[in-house]
Amino acid sequence: MILFEKHKEILDGATKAVYSRGFWAAYPENPKAYAEDGLAKAQEWYNTQLDNPFTELLQQNQNEWKGNETSPYTQELLNITYPAFEVDALIGNARSAMPDWRNATPETRAAVLIESLERIQKRFFDIALATMHTSGQAYMMSFQASGPHANDRALEAIAIGYDMLKRFPGKSEWDKPMGKFDIKVKKTWKAMGRGISLVIGCSTFPVWNTVPGLYASLMTGNPVIVKPHPGAILPIAIVVAEIQKALVSERFNPDIVQLAVDTYNSPITKDLATHPDVKIIDYTGGTKFGDYIESIPGKISFTEKAGVNSVIIDSVNELAPVMQNLAFAACLYSGQMCTAPQNIFIPEGGIKVGDTNVAFSDVAEAFADAVKNIVTHPKMGPGVLGAIQNIDTIQRIADAKENEEGGVVVLDSMSVQNEEFPNARSASPLVMTLDADAVDTYSEECFGPVVYIIRTRDTNQSIELAKKLASTRGAISCGAYTTDHKIKEHIAMEMEEAFTPVAFNLTGQIWMNQNAAFSDFHVTGGNPAGNASFTDPAYLVKRFVWVGHKEII
Amino acid sequence: MILFEKHKEILDGATKAVYSRGFWAAYPENPKAYAEDGLAKAQEWYNTQLDNPFTELLQQNQNEWKGNETSPYTQELLNITYPAFEVDALIGNARSAMPDWRNATPETRAAVLIESLERIQKRFFDIALATMHTSGQAYMMSFQASGPHANDRALEAIAIGYDMLKRFPGKSEWDKPMGKFDIKVKKTWKAMGRGISLVIGCSTFPVWNTVPGLYASLMTGNPVIVKPHPGAILPIAIVVAEIQKALVSERFNPDIVQLAVDTYNSPITKDLATHPDVKIIDYTGGTKFGDYIESIPGKISFTEKAGVNSVIIDSVNELAPVMQNLAFAACLYSGQMCTAPQNIFIPEGGIKVGDTNVAFSDVAEAFADAVKNIVTHPKMGPGVLGAIQNIDTIQRIADAKENEEGGVVVLDSMSVQNEEFPNARSASPLVMTLDADAVDTYSEECFGPVVYIIRTRDTNQSIELAKKLASTRGAISCGAYTTDHKIKEHIAMEMEEAFTPVAFNLTGQIWMNQNAAFSDFHVTGGNPAGNASFTDPAYLVKRFVWVGHKEII
Repeated sequence: MILFEKHKEILDGATKAVYSRGFWAAYPENPKAYAEDGLAKAQEWYNTQLDNPFTELLQQNQNEWKGNETSPYTQELLNITYPAFEVDALIGNARSAMPDWRNATPETRAAVLIESLERIQKRFFDIALATMHTSGQAYMMSFQASGPHANDRALEAIAIGYDMLKRFPGKSEWDKPMGKFDIKVKKTWKAMGRGISLVIGCSTFPVWNTVPGLYASLMTGNPVIVKPHPGAILPIAIVVAEIQKALVSERFNPDIVQLAVDTYNSPITKDLATHPDVKIIDYTGGTKFGDYIESIPGKISFTEKAGVNSVIIDSVNELAPVMQNLAFAACLYSGQMCTAPQNIFIPEGGIKVGDTNVAFSDVAEAFADAVKNIVTHPKMGPGVLGAIQNIDTIQRIADAKENEEGGVVVLDSMSVQNEEFPNARSASPLVMTLDADAVDTYSEECFGPVVYIIRTRDTNQSIELAKKLASTRGAISCGAYTTDHKIKEHIAMEMEEAFTPVAFNLTGQIWMNQNAAFSDFHVTGGNPAGNASFTDPAYLVKRFVWVGHKEII
Repeated sequence: MILFEKHKEILDGATKAVYSRGFWAAYPENPKAYAEDGLAKAQEWYNTQLDNPFTELLQQNQNEWKGNETSPYTQELLNITYPAFEVDALIGNARSAMPDWRNATPETRAAVLIESLERIQKRFFDIALATMHTSGQAYMMSFQASGPHANDRALEAIAIGYDMLKRFPGKSEWDKPMGKFDIKVKKTWKAMGRGISLVIGCSTFPVWNTVPGLYASLMTGNPVIVKPHPGAILPIAIVVAEIQKALVSERFNPDIVQLAVDTYNSPITKDLATHPDVKIIDYTGGTKFGDYIESIPGKISFTEKAGVNSVIIDSVNELAPVMQNLAFAACLYSGQMCTAPQNIFIPEGGIKVGDTNVAFSDVAEAFADAVKNIVTHPKMGPGVLGAIQNIDTIQRIADAKENEEGGVVVLDSMSVQNEEFPNARSASPLVMTLDADAVDTYSEECFGPVVYIIRTRDTNQSIELAKKLASTRGAISCGAYTTDHKIKEHIAMEMEEAFTPVAFNLTGQIWMNQNAAFSDFHVTGGNPAGNASFTDPAYLVKRFVWVGHKEII
């Protein structure tokens, strides 16, 4: 309870923030808020870690050492290995670790988990470099997304979990008047974690997309097996190691959280996911495997799959700031964000810019120019676009260009000059225009830097198409630009029916790709892009059940 | 909002009760609390309703009139018909009714729904007779379970739903400091109902088991199609009609809730359940169909299926009150409650009663005697046991008697004398002893009045078997008797791991079958007896999603 007292202030702050939804952050996103020599030391650490086993995990009795990550910046193997285990050993360890953790109070669990976040905070620079050299994110995004933003998301899950676990009292007296006498019953309630939880990570956001489910399951009393993407192990390995250290320092079994590495050639995800002792599965990744995860009987699953994100442009006050904002959103991490815009719907008759009309082709051109300005800027280019995680993405751009539905290239994809990493695998957005009837092309998620500008009859058709895509293919984000209040309301209502949030009229330093902890829900859980939303109460309460006993007094 | 003000007190009372879990009831369970001539008037109404169409529903354009319920008390057809519709018409109506309801505020929905409960309250006596003559429940249980207890369960769902819908603000300002300037964003949030909800009722508790899901879906903004069991339509038809009247009086479309009747010969449940527009399914009934419901892709399902409920007897202070309590629990509605005890585990060496030891066979005999006393009591017999809903249950008792695993009959099933209804279909509990290895027999739910008394090695084996059955076959309730504090703790811990609540040492006017609104969760959702618990927050929050829009200020 001493540890709980120590961390109570941060928990209270997070709880207040999450229910008021204004800006709040427990972990500042600016690297300058942390150790001045943080990056230099991390670079040293990273260089030592290369070509060596990762020995920080407190898991014991590994079978062998595995790992074959490649840096998108050097296109060379990191040659870091991790302890690997048989599926049955992982499950056995989790089972043994479960009772003590399940029976710990919400206060104890919250305290240990916040303690782990404090430990992780000291590793932000290490995690940033690990993220950079596995996901291909640029340094600043690597730092922010895998560091402070991920920690905030984890803290958010702890806060809502704590609140939900404390919704009902541990005990009460039930005193029923029966006329001449009363029936007095003593009742107790306990929130029981459902069992072993599996969290399946992705290669693009190996920390940010893993920690919400990880901390949500831990907070609600479930041991967790973290199965990272074989291409992005190092960043989450650090996180798992720090949680294990926090557990051990509070005399818990480190196997309450385990890292389960595999390789591209011998994947273990299905064996883990279908194991009868695994009760909860969190998954981020492609739709096909996500649908499979959702279909396994008897599991509680939380998925984030693919989506096709739309932008509806109806009218703007000024064109340049809008195009700059959208271009940045499309360039950020080379379109490898699940929230990146793919389809920009613009009426064939053009859009109103202030009092004048700007033609469709001029808007498309303005967008392409804005993209080009970012890509070719010597510092902004690599800093915004980063590198391409998966070589398949490069092929996907080439395939998109050979489009058979009449697509016209407005801006070709190019490689991004990167002075620091001349070997970086890079590709800037391919921008193409399409007609509205080329629906087979733009209704598929083309993961990576491909943007379609789609010529619609009018804004109504733009809305209709965006809504239909979101409903049938899923969408995690949506951007819209209109100066007309009624059209704005209409877009909001229509996209709500597709369970898709809309970012209206964004310009400046905020983009439709961004979902902030404590304020923005990430994925609504209402359309095919995923069945879960972090972090809403459902994300927590589905992970445990209430069991109540009673006894006559 | 005037209606909300009118009902705010009852909502506040329910919310407070549900989160403190002490005794509370909005609707008194004693018929004397209601109109003095209530029963007499209801009898008049019921006699007029027989052989006639049920015309109270506000649904329009029915295809035909259907219905073939039989009273377990007279074993004659009620010959009441209900408007019947094609599945597509029901779905179309629900779609049309959806937007206004979904966009109504939580305050409006809560107010209209509580208003409907006030209307239903005036029909408690009608609903009681309708329940009696479809389910076979005795009058008092019919009144309480389908009347006040069901209304309390509905109110509980409204209260938690309202609380969950108000967890997050409708809007906020997000003001992020960026050093030299701030980013100011206006954000809005809306809880969007997932879509059309289907509630599939059962024949034994046609109201009590239907209203929680019905009100939970309505409260969270979803139109509902109620598909009653073809054998028990009338009681829930009255409820649906009263909700429709409340909706219309507040200028809502009555199709926000529709009754979808079918018959044994042409069931429509699967067509409704698999319809792509149906997003939420509540189900009470057998395990096989429940498993099917859970397996339909893309649905949020809430199931209550079968379970095998155990009683562990280790030691007692006095034998008689314990046997009377257990016998009553077994006799209540002839074991047709999902919470009724089926398996009583007793050590072969007998149990401690105070300071002496009572042999296994003497305990079994004492239980059989206690059952016999209830069954043969001229008033208590029919008043407690009621009638048998389904003729298959009679066959099941006969099959159980021909047990091939060495079962010995301690008390045979007999028919229950009923002066008022000499033709009632009745059967008292068959009581048999079995050895612990006759697991094939006692591990199946034998729905109806069959009790197995199982001879175990010791209390540890009793606990082990009860836990295993609950984990693998499901359990909704569990009874345990022990005077030893350590054994009590052990039973609690073990059964918690099977997500099963335990009622300890019950004697007197409270039985393990009873789960009270505002205090007891019904089904934990953690074992095979069902995936849902009413009413915990998960029961509400899975029915809607949060959608948030944002805009630069």
